[in-house]
Amino acid sequence: MVNLRAMFITFEGLDYSGKSTQAKLLHEYLKHKKIKSILLREPGGTKISEKIRNILLDRKHLEMTPLTEFMLFSASRSQLVSQVIKPHLKKGYVVICDRYYDSSTAYQAYGGSLELENVISVNKTATGNLKPNITFFIDISPQKAFSRSGKRGSILDRMEAKNLAFYDRVYRGFKDIANKNKKRFVVINGTHTIEQVQSRILKTVNRKLKI
Amino acid sequence: MVNLRAMFITFEGLDYSGKSTQAKLLHEYLKHKKIKSILLREPGGTKISEKIRNILLDRKHLEMTPLTEFMLFSASRSQLVSQVIKPHLKKGYVVICDRYYDSSTAYQAYGGSLELENVISVNKTATGNLKPNITFFIDISPQKAFSRSGKRGSILDRMEAKNLAFYDRVYRGFKDIANKNKKRFVVINGTHTIEQVQSRILKTVNRKLKI
Repeated sequence: MVNLRAMFITFEGLDYSGKSTQAKLLHEYLKHKKIKSILLREPGGTKISEKIRNILLDRKHLEMTPLTEFMLFSASRSQLVSQVIKPHLKKGYVVICDRYYDSSTAYQAYGGSLELENVISVNKTATGNLKPNITFFIDISPQKAFSRSGKRGSILDRMEAKNLAFYDRVYRGFKDIANKNKKRFVVINGTHTIEQVQSRILKTVNRKLKI
Repeated sequence: MVNLRAMFITFEGLDYSGKSTQAKLLHEYLKHKKIKSILLREPGGTKISEKIRNILLDRKHLEMTPLTEFMLFSASRSQLVSQVIKPHLKKGYVVICDRYYDSSTAYQAYGGSLELENVISVNKTATGNLKPNITFFIDISPQKAFSRSGKRGSILDRMEAKNLAFYDRVYRGFKDIANKNKKRFVVINGTHTIEQVQSRILKTVNRKLKI
């Protein structure tokens, strides 16, 4: 494996935006190019983070408050950063993460009821202020996401559990975060084909990694 | 039960300070006086918080970072505040809590490696800035705590797992927090007898609750 240079790349967007597919494709591409990389998803990625994930995803926990949910995401993320992300960056890996703290900001501050300032502050603390080098925001509207979700026919999916207004706030949140962090954000039209979206992503990655 | 007035009382101090005994005695006293009260301990107190407690206390989780530990304590506390403490205060209960966020500040910022400012800020966020009305700091030195711990003969106890220097920082931390929050803190010499310590606590509680 060629050790080019460490880079931390995150993917953000609504469910059904195609971001997980793109994260996987980028990982495959880098492996093919013999560039050391790992693919992570949130919440999870360490033994402790997976245990936290189980608490988060347990459908019986209806009483969980948005604040507790956010704190659990932060705990899971904190462990992932220390145990996996930072050590891999140190070893020169490209670390690809499917969702990171911008998701907390979009879903729990813009979409939910938490104070934006508090969420941003806890995000910084939980990650030791580790910022991604590039964040790809795969931009599809909530309407598009809903129509895609329908195609997959998953009636019980969490997209259906909350209403369109919520996802609209989340979507505007992502756009706002992207606007405020222009240096690291790359906004990509997610309504194009998988190949078109990937080609746009690779253009940025190739340039940054000097491939 | 007579509904006097809601009050949030926390107990802080080193392990073996006697604070848990005093929290229980206060709870018994208030019950005897027909004053509605509940006794809680951290971490725990809700179904979700107990699950978080299990992750925190799992001895196999040696890789858990101090930051993750703190975030998990904050998640547990956040759920306890929303689901139990606030609703009970609303119903006019005296809520007694064996440890609260001052423990995080003392153990994880003063004792550990976390930034004081970050810990205080996350504490505020996790609790929606719910401050205790009274905090009893049961003051015994680390040396005294160690000698008491020896008497109970628990070699594997966590007091023994870290060194005296750590507990000395925690102890100084508690004193510093007490000094900075004089309005709510009552510092009580914990080397006195159980009865003497309790009488000092009841003096304050009776005055505040107008018993």
